Amino acid sequence: MITLHDNVDSGNAYKARLLLGQLGLPFRTIAYDVTRGETRTEDFLGRINANGRIPVIEFDDGRCLAESNAILYYFALGTNFFPDDRWRQAEIMQWLFFEQYSHEPFVAVAKFILTMLPPDTPRRAEIPLLHEKGYAALQILEDRLKNRDFLVGGEYSIADIALFAYTHKAEMGGFDLGRFPALQRWIGRVEKMPGFVAMYPKDGSRS
Amino acid sequence: MITLHDNVDSGNAYKARLLLGQLGLPFRTIAYDVTRGETRTEDFLGRINANGRIPVIEFDDGRCLAESNAILYYFALGTNFFPDDRWRQAEIMQWLFFEQYSHEPFVAVAKFILTMLPPDTPRRAEIPLLHEKGYAALQILEDRLKNRDFLVGGEYSIADIALFAYTHKAEMGGFDLGRFPALQRWIGRVEKMPGFVAMYPKDGSRS
Repeated sequence: MITLHDNVDSGNAYKARLLLGQLGLPFRTIAYDVTRGETRTEDFLGRINANGRIPVIEFDDGRCLAESNAILYYFALGTNFFPDDRWRQAEIMQWLFFEQYSHEPFVAVAKFILTMLPPDTPRRAEIPLLHEKGYAALQILEDRLKNRDFLVGGEYSIADIALFAYTHKAEMGGFDLGRFPALQRWIGRVEKMPGFVAMYPKDGSRS
Repeated sequence: MITLHDNVDSGNAYKARLLLGQLGLPFRTIAYDVTRGETRTEDFLGRINANGRIPVIEFDDGRCLAESNAILYYFALGTNFFPDDRWRQAEIMQWLFFEQYSHEPFVAVAKFILTMLPPDTPRRAEIPLLHEKGYAALQILEDRLKNRDFLVGGEYSIADIALFAYTHKAEMGGFDLGRFPALQRWIGRVEKMPGFVAMYPKDGSRS
């Protein structure tokens, strides 16, 4: 059985939990506390991921795959979550790279600072810039979803999974999703997809 | 003929020029000065890329594809630059997302600050942190390439193109590549690949 090297507070790890759940693929998890450096040990860096980050999928033969969106790609190949059409695939890729470059570094990091670090952390000084850039990313999503049910080709795909993960918890990072009605409707649609699993075991309690 | 919305100083745009050149695909370019906001005009944001960034590939029918690594994926599909094997594809994806999340935001941004902004820019204060994180990324590449000719499966792929772009110009961002002998050998191998094209028209003059 595959192993997901996991963290409950990581939207990136949640992407893998959500897709594997929707595909009905069994997996076990090993949870790490990233704030205690548990992903920076010699064993983790040498065997699991030299970049010291979760999520990582470990296969029974010891092979390891890091980077949340590479994990989505691997498991979605050949399924409805990643259609065969070359152009749609390219558009999905565009959104996956947009997420990691222009969305996650702001939306996810604001959540991390406000919920995982002490209230007096000096990193709170980063919040205004994170909000400026995070709101820009959320606005791009809002505009994209105004006339679309899902991000690419009208169908739910790993593009939606990748963007949903941190977007639907953006308020934990101090973002006001009330500004984005199309985004809120899309969040509702994703939450109604077959096999949907919530990010937190008792969702609502952390948001 | 396809159009590459381009910038000569962008390693991300260079990735597209390099792959298209190696594939022998003809394309025309439109150059933008990103420091003058030329990718933030109403036309660019509305028609080319809502995220206001180059590179973008524009097709004759008006479709546009942004994100350098999505462009690499689209054009490499079905070629030797992106092998059919699912596991190798996943590994390539891991390196593409590593590049955009853990490498480019430091290695590329240091180059931008030191070569594109005025010498007295306050952004020079970012350089120490950019170097710390950029050196960490370069060390991961060094370790990966110590016993390998190329990043994935022993064969040149879009993973090498994506990482080569800013790595081989890292010294423009103040990084000392002398610390990384395996990286330097790999740079030499990439530069000898069939159809290789240099980043700058008169390469050497800018580095």
